[in-house]
Amino acid sequence: MYGYRGKILRVNLTEKTFKVEDLDLELAKKFIGGRGLGEKLFMDEVDPKVDPLSPENKFLVVTGPLTGTPTPTGGRYMVVTKSPLSDTIACSNSGGFWGAELKFAGYDVIIVEGKADNPVYIYIEDDKVEIKDAQHLWGKVVSETTKSLTEECGEKAKVLTIGPAGEKLSKIAAVMNDLYRAAGRSGVGAVMGSKNLKAIVVKGSGKPQIAQEDKLKEVVTKCIKKLKENGVTGQGLPTYGTAVLVNIINENGVFPTNNFQKGVFPEAEEISGETLAEKYLIKKDVCYRCPIGCGRYCKVDDIEGGGPEYETIWAFGADCGVSDLASIIKANFWCNELGLDTISAGTTIAAAMELYQRGYIKEEETEGVPLEFGNSEAVIEWTKRMGYREGIGDKLAEGSYRLAESYGAPDLSMSVKKLELPAYDPRGIQGHGLQYATSNRGGCHVRGYLISPEILGLPEKLDRFSLEGKAQWAKTFQDLTAAIDSLGLCLFTSFALGAQDYADLYNALVGTEFSGEDILTAGERIWNIEKLFNLKAGITKKDDTLPKRLLTEPIPEGPSKGWVHKLEELLPQYYQLRGWDEEGVPKEETLAKLGI
Amino acid sequence: MYGYRGKILRVNLTEKTFKVEDLDLELAKKFIGGRGLGEKLFMDEVDPKVDPLSPENKFLVVTGPLTGTPTPTGGRYMVVTKSPLSDTIACSNSGGFWGAELKFAGYDVIIVEGKADNPVYIYIEDDKVEIKDAQHLWGKVVSETTKSLTEECGEKAKVLTIGPAGEKLSKIAAVMNDLYRAAGRSGVGAVMGSKNLKAIVVKGSGKPQIAQEDKLKEVVTKCIKKLKENGVTGQGLPTYGTAVLVNIINENGVFPTNNFQKGVFPEAEEISGETLAEKYLIKKDVCYRCPIGCGRYCKVDDIEGGGPEYETIWAFGADCGVSDLASIIKANFWCNELGLDTISAGTTIAAAMELYQRGYIKEEETEGVPLEFGNSEAVIEWTKRMGYREGIGDKLAEGSYRLAESYGAPDLSMSVKKLELPAYDPRGIQGHGLQYATSNRGGCHVRGYLISPEILGLPEKLDRFSLEGKAQWAKTFQDLTAAIDSLGLCLFTSFALGAQDYADLYNALVGTEFSGEDILTAGERIWNIEKLFNLKAGITKKDDTLPKRLLTEPIPEGPSKGWVHKLEELLPQYYQLRGWDEEGVPKEETLAKLGI
Repeated sequence: MYGYRGKILRVNLTEKTFKVEDLDLELAKKFIGGRGLGEKLFMDEVDPKVDPLSPENKFLVVTGPLTGTPTPTGGRYMVVTKSPLSDTIACSNSGGFWGAELKFAGYDVIIVEGKADNPVYIYIEDDKVEIKDAQHLWGKVVSETTKSLTEECGEKAKVLTIGPAGEKLSKIAAVMNDLYRAAGRSGVGAVMGSKNLKAIVVKGSGKPQIAQEDKLKEVVTKCIKKLKENGVTGQGLPTYGTAVLVNIINENGVFPTNNFQKGVFPEAEEISGETLAEKYLIKKDVCYRCPIGCGRYCKVDDIEGGGPEYETIWAFGADCGVSDLASIIKANFWCNELGLDTISAGTTIAAAMELYQRGYIKEEETEGVPLEFGNSEAVIEWTKRMGYREGIGDKLAEGSYRLAESYGAPDLSMSVKKLELPAYDPRGIQGHGLQYATSNRGGCHVRGYLISPEILGLPEKLDRFSLEGKAQWAKTFQDLTAAIDSLGLCLFTSFALGAQDYADLYNALVGTEFSGEDILTAGERIWNIEKLFNLKAGITKKDDTLPKRLLTEPIPEGPSKGWVHKLEELLPQYYQLRGWDEEGVPKEETLAKLGI
Repeated sequence: MYGYRGKILRVNLTEKTFKVEDLDLELAKKFIGGRGLGEKLFMDEVDPKVDPLSPENKFLVVTGPLTGTPTPTGGRYMVVTKSPLSDTIACSNSGGFWGAELKFAGYDVIIVEGKADNPVYIYIEDDKVEIKDAQHLWGKVVSETTKSLTEECGEKAKVLTIGPAGEKLSKIAAVMNDLYRAAGRSGVGAVMGSKNLKAIVVKGSGKPQIAQEDKLKEVVTKCIKKLKENGVTGQGLPTYGTAVLVNIINENGVFPTNNFQKGVFPEAEEISGETLAEKYLIKKDVCYRCPIGCGRYCKVDDIEGGGPEYETIWAFGADCGVSDLASIIKANFWCNELGLDTISAGTTIAAAMELYQRGYIKEEETEGVPLEFGNSEAVIEWTKRMGYREGIGDKLAEGSYRLAESYGAPDLSMSVKKLELPAYDPRGIQGHGLQYATSNRGGCHVRGYLISPEILGLPEKLDRFSLEGKAQWAKTFQDLTAAIDSLGLCLFTSFALGAQDYADLYNALVGTEFSGEDILTAGERIWNIEKLFNLKAGITKKDDTLPKRLLTEPIPEGPSKGWVHKLEELLPQYYQLRGWDEEGVPKEETLAKLGI
């Protein structure tokens, strides 16, 4: 067995039992691993109509075949479950070291079932598995929990945990690992909370076998060279982190400001990656075997820790009209501690600010911290209230859609399938907007990052306003991304690497003979099973859309002035290219072709 | 006050008192900071003939003006004291985060005087300074000490400490910080031990002011771009760490093997940076604000931690004839834990192996672990015995010169001024050999890294066997290096940056108008005061030499076959260029020109 470790750990929290099962290697190869394999296993076992916060939902942690191997960025794991935020299939991806350690311990997958009667954590040390009491950890923030668990389990133990937000079933709660890394989106932290599962701690002493050692060395060397020579992965990201995008996106007039009311934030420079580097950066915070090193570690006053990322800076910054970077870093710090998805947390506050601006939320409800755009104190304080569900923080903890709906104004939630949109206004980036609308987990930028060709010009520069060819670009990026996630690599490698590079890495490791085309086909297969799950869960064509504002209100000023998103023209082309019918349902022949 | 914080913390361990003094800013600018300023302060206060391990020796920790600022690699500190190994001035330099934190706490320099009657540590939190009992830490290894101290002082506290080797006054003991970083050379750890000073813990909440913020941003951006585009700092070091040199140096036939008996190690590939990356690397271990990220973090079986570096791999590897990389990583682990300089530790074992090979050390003295070249178990076991001074480990703890001398064979120590030579055979790199012979702290590669032009071709490729121009190259590199150390930057920046870049960084930060030439002159000034100290300490022309083997025995095989080092030709040229007389004593006019 090469690459994979060949074992699934199944833990039943209701029964407090576990067993180790063999991985079906043929199935694994068909769905690659990680996202694809995890979703396939999940769908084979769970009813798509399951209540996400019930004991019947399952919580999978899945690694890719490249996780924990000597491949660049090969350290990622994914959480697969049904999302309590969007009711879609959820697959949230994280870096750091936890994923590699799970492979060292000998497992490809953990399947968590049922619900413990009291808070517990799972301890894994190679063959030794224990379900341990976590009463003493319940209520603790992420740093305290991690500290307690490394004291209990040893310094080298890797900790995955939820914070108070996950315990309190916030629909925007994240799963955190290695202190500052998050499987952030879709509210997957609440699923752990619903199972009374506080943490999973892992220590491993083995490692995956390599089919062709010399060949792998050669391919890795080639890939690292490409990553180093690429402007984004070799210069932009290592130097300024993901926040290198702040100025670039703002200059294109697609940097959503005040809950997408505008596309230009005049104070962008003050919250840029350059300013972050100048004023607050302490070091890079790198993941397992990453030659890019985009992670930041910053300090403001007596607060320090990982991040903030570009999306976080935008969500708490421009989207809330806030230009004080120190406050954004503090809000990010609290998201890490409470275990909140920074994109959903920041944008939910932005939605609350517009609800306040338009008189839906009354001043008395804000209890001394007005939800005014530009109020830098508010982004810190409301993050805490959201995490602890204090006052109307209780409503914010449900995410922007349910918040806005509760005030009778659901259109003020800038979300797709109830998942909050990230930091790019699709009105000025048409392909990216199509991707938002069709993403199987909702408003997400990492299911097909069309910013790469439409803004950054990689692998080639497209006209961002044109619709031509965009459906095909969206499909290709979505399929390739599904494959990269499934391999266990970081999406950022795709700025420099192509399908053939991924095939070369996989082949040398596992001993297969996949072509680049095979990798893309596997990605398409994964995309289609996700779609099938969603359809069965009741997520249909009506949900493949964008917030009304983005379809009807032109961007009021700046380099993208006058544009709305033209989804109506793009969506039918996309469905057709995918081999889906007019309702967005995969045709028999499409599924047959993909072997589903 | 810009760049500098303007404060010196003076701690008297005999009296258990401290006071804060103002920094003389004009003096600071004349000697830049760090190495230069620290040495000037030291020399003004300490008799060059002082016994290094007596209470009358002082122990200075000094930062540069760029330490703790937003400059790339600006996180370094230096230990300045008189070396118990070489009796020269000692200045050992380290990265990590401790140095930046000292600046955050508000100090440029700490001067430690006297000797505590019992083990203590110094705790600094901004204005708060305490001399605390360290009885409970005495005897503990570095990781345990660091763990205890962060439990006592808080997670964000940065720890500088010695291990058991420093406590036991090993003349090759290092000062460790941030777990895996070392002010390694010259036995500076023993000076801490002699003062009963186990550790210095620091936490700071301020930061240095910047004279010209926008200008600094611009210069930093320029410098980072150069660092990214340079083959060594942008590709080689980030990808494979310093061990990227193993194959390169071996291919030139100057990779000292079996205590410099040969210049080619046939198994070099097995201990290369490439193999390290393939088999044992977990992540990069980056220093404060470093865009290069050469640091490694590796795992073998149940051992993991920072390193190993190129020099370490060579010292325990080729120089001991050992090709088992896992054993080298373990020996490195023990050096980190015991607080031993890896270069001196590995090469002292290599010297012991030659003493054993030639019958000086008897089998019975080796107590079950024969000191045979190639014995991978020996490099681990003898590192521990050396650190704990067990058996003849007690003799090894004194360094290779005193070890070899004690057996009547001092010529088997491959050292200059009793400091062990690093991983480049000077017989095949003539300029580098001159640098070894004239280095003010003894056998050292980081006082003027002529490997850069003579092997790597930066800034231009020189004929490594030629003597032409080498005296001038050695002088220029020595002066520039003294300036870089003094600024608080990492020497590795010099692969990509030149004197003018350093001047630009310093000027924007401090508000001065130094030229590149001024930076070099400051470096020359520093080099000359070091020389004056050594002369007063009794270190003279007779000590500006190389081990007899390197002057008389030609390299037996490989691409440097037949060469010896031609120091006799180079040394007079060098003295003349330096403005020194034939005995290597700086002339009056030279000192006057430099304002000394």
